[in-house]
Amino acid sequence: MTDKIFPTAQDAEAAFYEALERGDYQTMAAVWAEDEDVLCVHPGGPRLRGTDEVLAQWKRIFEGGQRLQVRITQQVVIAGMMVAVHSVQENIVIEGEGPAPHAVVATNVYQRIGPGWRMVAHHASPVPAPAAPPPAENRLPGSATLH
Amino acid sequence: MTDKIFPTAQDAEAAFYEALERGDYQTMAAVWAEDEDVLCVHPGGPRLRGTDEVLAQWKRIFEGGQRLQVRITQQVVIAGMMVAVHSVQENIVIEGEGPAPHAVVATNVYQRIGPGWRMVAHHASPVPAPAAPPPAENRLPGSATLH
Repeated sequence: MTDKIFPTAQDAEAAFYEALERGDYQTMAAVWAEDEDVLCVHPGGPRLRGTDEVLAQWKRIFEGGQRLQVRITQQVVIAGMMVAVHSVQENIVIEGEGPAPHAVVATNVYQRIGPGWRMVAHHASPVPAPAAPPPAENRLPGSATLH
Repeated sequence: MTDKIFPTAQDAEAAFYEALERGDYQTMAAVWAEDEDVLCVHPGGPRLRGTDEVLAQWKRIFEGGQRLQVRITQQVVIAGMMVAVHSVQENIVIEGEGPAPHAVVATNVYQRIGPGWRMVAHHASPVPAPAAPPPAENRLPGSATLH
Protein backbone atom coordinates (compact mmCIF):
# COMPACT_ATOMS: atom_id res chain seq x y z
CA MET A 1 0.00 0.00 0.00
CA THR A 2 3.00 2.26 0.37
CA ASP A 3 4.77 2.04 -3.00
CA LYS A 4 3.77 5.59 -3.83
CA ILE A 5 6.59 8.14 -3.60
CA PHE A 6 5.89 11.77 -2.86
CA PRO A 7 8.93 13.75 -4.10
CA THR A 8 8.07 16.82 -1.98
CA ALA A 9 6.15 17.58 1.20
CA GLN A 10 3.73 19.53 -0.98
CA ASP A 11 3.05 16.38 -3.03
CA ALA A 12 2.31 14.47 0.16
CA GLU A 13 -0.01 17.27 1.29
CA ALA A 14 -1.89 17.30 -2.01
CA ALA A 15 -2.36 13.52 -1.78
CA PHE A 16 -3.53 13.82 1.83
CA TYR A 17 -6.31 16.25 0.95
CA GLU A 18 -7.28 14.32 -2.18
CA ALA A 19 -7.59 11.20 -0.06
CA LEU A 20 -9.67 13.13 2.48
CA GLU A 21 -12.06 14.44 -0.19
CA ARG A 22 -12.42 11.12 -1.96
CA GLY A 23 -12.56 8.96 1.15
CA ASP A 24 -9.65 7.08 -0.42
CA TYR A 25 -8.11 4.90 2.26
CA GLN A 26 -5.33 3.45 0.09
CA THR A 27 -3.96 6.88 -0.74
CA MET A 28 -4.33 8.00 2.87
CA ALA A 29 -2.34 4.95 3.98
CA ALA A 30 0.37 5.74 1.41
CA VAL A 31 0.70 9.32 2.66
CA TRP A 32 1.41 8.41 6.29
CA ALA A 33 4.81 7.23 7.48
CA GLU A 34 4.90 3.84 9.16
CA ASP A 35 6.06 4.52 12.69
CA GLU A 36 4.79 4.11 16.22
CA ASP A 37 5.26 7.84 16.78
CA VAL A 38 3.16 9.34 13.99
CA LEU A 39 0.43 11.54 15.49
CA CYS A 40 -3.03 12.63 14.45
CA VAL A 41 -5.44 15.00 16.19
CA HIS A 42 -8.85 15.33 14.53
CA PRO A 43 -10.88 18.50 15.24
CA GLY A 44 -12.01 18.35 18.85
CA GLY A 45 -10.39 14.95 19.31
CA PRO A 46 -7.64 13.33 21.36
CA ARG A 47 -4.16 12.63 20.06
CA LEU A 48 -3.89 9.33 18.20
CA ARG A 49 -0.44 7.77 18.08
CA GLY A 50 1.14 5.22 15.79
CA THR A 51 0.32 4.34 12.19
CA ASP A 52 -2.06 1.53 13.16
CA GLU A 53 -4.19 3.71 15.42
CA VAL A 54 -4.11 6.68 13.04
CA LEU A 55 -5.07 4.67 9.96
CA ALA A 56 -7.75 2.71 11.81
CA GLN A 57 -9.43 6.02 12.61
CA TRP A 58 -9.21 7.22 9.01
CA LYS A 59 -10.77 3.92 7.95
CA ARG A 60 -13.67 4.46 10.39
CA ILE A 61 -14.14 8.01 9.12
CA PHE A 62 -14.18 6.95 5.48
CA GLU A 63 -16.48 4.03 6.20
CA GLY A 64 -18.92 6.54 7.71
CA GLY A 65 -19.50 7.62 4.11
CA GLN A 66 -19.55 11.37 4.77
CA ARG A 67 -18.32 13.21 1.68
CA LEU A 68 -16.37 16.42 2.08
CA GLN A 69 -15.08 19.18 -0.14
CA VAL A 70 -11.92 20.73 1.22
CA ARG A 71 -10.43 24.00 0.02
CA ILE A 72 -7.02 24.85 1.45
CA THR A 73 -6.13 28.50 2.12
CA GLN A 74 -3.58 30.53 4.08
CA GLN A 75 -0.76 28.01 3.75
CA VAL A 76 2.40 28.82 5.67
CA VAL A 77 5.44 26.57 5.11
CA ILE A 78 8.32 25.99 7.54
CA ALA A 79 10.76 23.95 5.48
CA GLY A 80 13.82 22.04 6.65
CA MET A 81 15.93 19.48 4.83
CA MET A 82 14.31 16.49 6.52
CA VAL A 83 11.28 17.93 8.31
CA ALA A 84 8.69 20.33 6.89
CA VAL A 85 5.71 21.88 8.61
CA HIS A 86 2.71 23.23 6.69
CA SER A 87 0.08 25.26 8.49
CA VAL A 88 -3.16 25.63 6.55
CA GLN A 89 -6.77 26.57 6.93
CA GLU A 90 -9.08 23.80 5.75
CA ASN A 91 -12.40 25.14 4.48
CA ILE A 92 -14.67 22.11 4.62
CA VAL A 93 -18.06 21.82 2.99
CA ILE A 94 -20.03 18.74 4.02
CA GLU A 95 -22.16 17.12 1.36
CA GLY A 96 -25.84 17.59 2.15
CA GLU A 97 -25.22 20.64 4.33
CA GLY A 98 -25.39 24.26 3.25
CA PRO A 99 -22.56 25.87 1.27
CA ALA A 100 -20.98 27.69 4.24
CA PRO A 101 -17.66 26.01 4.95
CA HIS A 102 -16.43 24.90 8.36
CA ALA A 103 -13.02 26.41 9.05
CA VAL A 104 -10.37 24.18 10.57
CA VAL A 105 -6.74 25.13 11.24
CA ALA A 106 -4.27 22.30 10.64
CA THR A 107 -0.60 21.84 11.37
CA ASN A 108 0.78 19.16 9.04
CA VAL A 109 4.26 17.72 9.60
CA TYR A 110 6.15 15.84 6.90
CA GLN A 111 9.40 13.95 7.10
CA ARG A 112 11.77 12.93 4.33
CA ILE A 113 12.08 9.16 4.46
CA GLY A 114 14.32 7.66 1.80
CA PRO A 115 13.48 9.14 -1.58
CA GLY A 116 10.17 10.70 -0.62
CA TRP A 117 8.17 12.62 1.93
CA ARG A 118 5.50 11.23 4.25
CA MET A 119 3.10 12.75 6.74
CA VAL A 120 4.17 12.16 10.36
CA ALA A 121 1.74 14.46 12.17
CA HIS A 122 -1.62 16.12 11.53
CA HIS A 123 -3.10 18.39 14.19
CA ALA A 124 -6.46 19.93 13.33
CA SER A 125 -8.76 22.12 15.43
CA PRO A 126 -11.91 24.08 14.62
CA VAL A 127 -11.58 27.81 14.05
CA PRO A 128 -14.16 29.67 16.15
CA ALA A 129 -16.75 31.73 14.30
CA PRO A 130 -15.71 35.39 13.95
CA ALA A 131 -18.77 36.45 15.93
CA ALA A 132 -17.38 34.82 19.08
CA PRO A 133 -16.39 37.26 21.83
CA PRO A 134 -12.65 38.05 21.84
CA PRO A 135 -11.73 36.33 25.13
CA ALA A 136 -13.09 33.04 23.79
CA GLU A 137 -9.76 32.13 22.28
CA ASN A 138 -8.26 31.69 25.72
CA ARG A 139 -11.00 29.57 27.21
CA LEU A 140 -12.06 26.01 27.10
CA PRO A 141 -15.78 25.74 26.41
CA GLY A 142 -17.47 26.56 29.68
CA SER A 143 -14.19 26.56 31.53
CA ALA A 144 -11.54 28.92 32.78
CA THR A 145 -8.77 30.69 30.92
CA LEU A 146 -6.02 28.34 29.85
CA HIS A 147 -3.61 30.06 27.55
CA MET B 1 14.48 41.16 24.69
CA THR B 2 15.95 38.51 22.42
CA ASP B 3 19.54 38.15 23.62
CA LYS B 4 18.78 34.79 25.15
CA ILE B 5 20.12 31.81 23.22
CA PHE B 6 18.47 28.40 23.43
CA PRO B 7 21.07 25.83 22.33
CA THR B 8 18.46 23.13 21.66
CA ALA B 9 14.79 22.96 20.79
CA GLN B 10 14.28 21.32 24.19
CA ASP B 11 15.80 24.37 25.88
CA ALA B 12 13.39 26.62 23.99
CA GLU B 13 10.50 24.38 25.00
CA ALA B 14 11.50 24.44 28.67
CA ALA B 15 11.69 28.25 28.55
CA PHE B 16 8.30 28.43 26.82
CA TYR B 17 6.55 26.48 29.57
CA GLU B 18 8.41 28.32 32.33
CA ALA B 19 7.27 31.60 30.81
CA LEU B 20 3.70 30.26 30.59
CA GLU B 21 3.67 29.21 34.25
CA ARG B 22 5.27 32.39 35.53
CA GLY B 23 3.38 34.77 33.25
CA ASP B 24 6.83 35.98 32.20
CA TYR B 25 6.41 38.05 29.07
CA GLN B 26 10.12 38.80 28.56
CA THR B 27 11.04 35.14 28.44
CA MET B 28 8.05 34.36 26.22
CA ALA B 29 9.19 37.08 23.81
CA ALA B 30 12.73 35.64 23.81
CA VAL B 31 11.46 32.16 22.95
CA TRP B 32 9.58 33.18 19.79
CA ALA B 33 11.33 33.81 16.49
CA GLU B 34 10.81 37.24 14.99
CA ASP B 35 9.03 36.64 11.72
CA GLU B 36 5.75 37.54 10.06
CA ASP B 37 5.04 33.83 9.59
CA VAL B 38 5.26 32.54 13.16
CA LEU B 39 1.94 30.96 14.14
CA CYS B 40 0.04 30.44 17.39
CA VAL B 41 -3.26 28.67 18.00
CA HIS B 42 -4.52 28.85 21.60
CA PRO B 43 -6.98 26.15 22.74
CA GLY B 44 -10.27 26.76 20.93
CA GLY B 45 -8.87 29.85 19.24
CA PRO B 46 -8.09 31.08 15.75
CA ARG B 47 -4.63 31.04 14.18
CA LEU B 48 -2.58 34.10 15.07
CA ARG B 49 0.19 35.00 12.64
CA GLY B 50 3.34 37.07 12.98
CA THR B 51 5.43 37.81 16.06
CA ASP B 52 3.61 41.06 16.81
CA GLU B 53 0.16 39.48 16.86
CA VAL B 54 1.35 36.38 18.72
CA LEU B 55 3.19 38.28 21.45
CA ALA B 56 0.39 40.83 21.84
CA GLN B 57 -1.93 37.94 22.68
CA TRP B 58 0.53 36.45 25.19
CA LYS B 59 0.76 39.90 26.77
CA ARG B 60 -3.04 40.06 27.10
CA ILE B 61 -3.12 36.57 28.60
CA PHE B 62 -0.41 37.35 31.14
CA GLU B 63 -2.01 40.69 32.03
CA GLY B 64 -5.19 38.76 32.81
CA GLY B 65 -3.30 37.53 35.88
CA GLN B 66 -4.47 33.91 35.70
CA ARG B 67 -1.78 31.66 37.19
CA LEU B 68 -1.26 28.19 35.79
CA GLN B 69 0.70 25.09 36.68
CA VAL B 70 1.66 23.10 33.62
CA ARG B 71 2.96 19.54 33.67
CA ILE B 72 4.17 18.20 30.33
CA THR B 73 3.67 14.53 29.49
CA GLN B 74 3.72 12.20 26.48
CA GLN B 75 6.34 14.16 24.56
CA VAL B 76 7.07 12.94 21.03
CA VAL B 77 9.96 14.56 19.15
CA ILE B 78 10.38 14.80 15.38
CA ALA B 79 13.87 16.21 14.99
CA GLY B 80 15.51 17.63 11.89
CA MET B 81 18.71 19.65 11.50
CA MET B 82 16.91 22.98 11.23
CA VAL B 83 13.31 22.23 12.17
CA ALA B 84 12.09 20.24 15.16
CA VAL B 85 8.53 19.36 16.14
CA HIS B 86 7.57 18.43 19.69
CA SER B 87 4.12 17.05 20.39
CA VAL B 88 3.14 17.13 24.06
CA GLN B 89 0.22 16.88 26.39
CA GLU B 90 -0.07 19.92 28.63
CA ASN B 91 -1.73 19.11 31.96
CA ILE B 92 -2.86 22.49 33.21
CA VAL B 93 -4.03 23.27 36.71
CA ILE B 94 -5.58 26.70 37.12
CA GLU B 95 -4.92 28.49 40.39
CA GLY B 96 -8.10 28.72 42.42
CA GLU B 97 -9.74 25.79 40.66
CA GLY B 98 -9.75 22.20 41.79
CA PRO B 99 -6.71 19.95 41.35
CA ALA B 100 -8.02 18.12 38.26
CA PRO B 101 -5.88 19.23 35.34
CA HIS B 102 -7.20 20.36 31.97
CA ALA B 103 -5.58 18.32 29.21
CA VAL B 104 -4.39 20.14 26.12
CA VAL B 105 -2.51 18.61 23.18
CA ALA B 106 0.12 20.89 21.68
CA THR B 107 2.25 20.74 18.57
CA ASN B 108 5.30 22.94 19.07
CA VAL B 109 7.58 23.79 16.14
CA TYR B 110 11.13 25.10 16.60
CA GLN B 111 13.58 26.39 14.05
CA ARG B 112 17.32 26.77 14.29
CA ILE B 113 18.11 30.41 13.72
CA GLY B 114 21.79 31.30 13.90
CA PRO B 115 23.31 29.77 17.04
CA GLY B 116 20.06 28.89 18.77
CA TRP B 117 16.54 27.54 18.50
CA ARG B 118 13.32 29.53 18.61
CA MET B 119 9.66 28.66 18.61
CA VAL B 120 7.99 29.31 15.25
CA ALA B 121 4.63 27.62 15.81
CA HIS B 122 2.45 26.54 18.75
CA HIS B 123 -0.84 24.77 18.05
CA ALA B 124 -2.85 23.81 21.12
CA SER B 125 -6.29 22.24 21.39
CA PRO B 126 -8.28 20.80 24.31
CA VAL B 127 -8.32 17.05 24.75
CA PRO B 128 -11.90 15.84 25.19
CA ALA B 129 -12.80 14.16 28.46
CA PRO B 130 -12.48 10.36 28.25
CA ALA B 131 -16.18 10.02 29.07
CA ALA B 132 -17.12 11.61 25.73
CA PRO B 133 -18.79 9.24 23.27
CA PRO B 134 -16.33 7.79 20.74
CA PRO B 135 -17.70 9.51 17.62
CA ALA B 136 -17.15 12.91 19.21
CA GLU B 137 -13.60 13.09 17.94
CA ASN B 138 -14.84 13.49 14.39
CA ARG B 139 -17.38 16.19 15.06
CA LEU B 140 -17.42 19.88 15.60
CA PRO B 141 -19.46 20.75 18.66
CA GLY B 142 -23.08 20.49 17.58
CA SER B 143 -22.09 20.01 13.98
CA ALA B 144 -21.56 17.29 11.43
CA THR B 145 -18.64 14.93 10.96
CA LEU B 146 -15.57 16.70 9.65
CA HIS B 147 -12.58 14.44 9.74
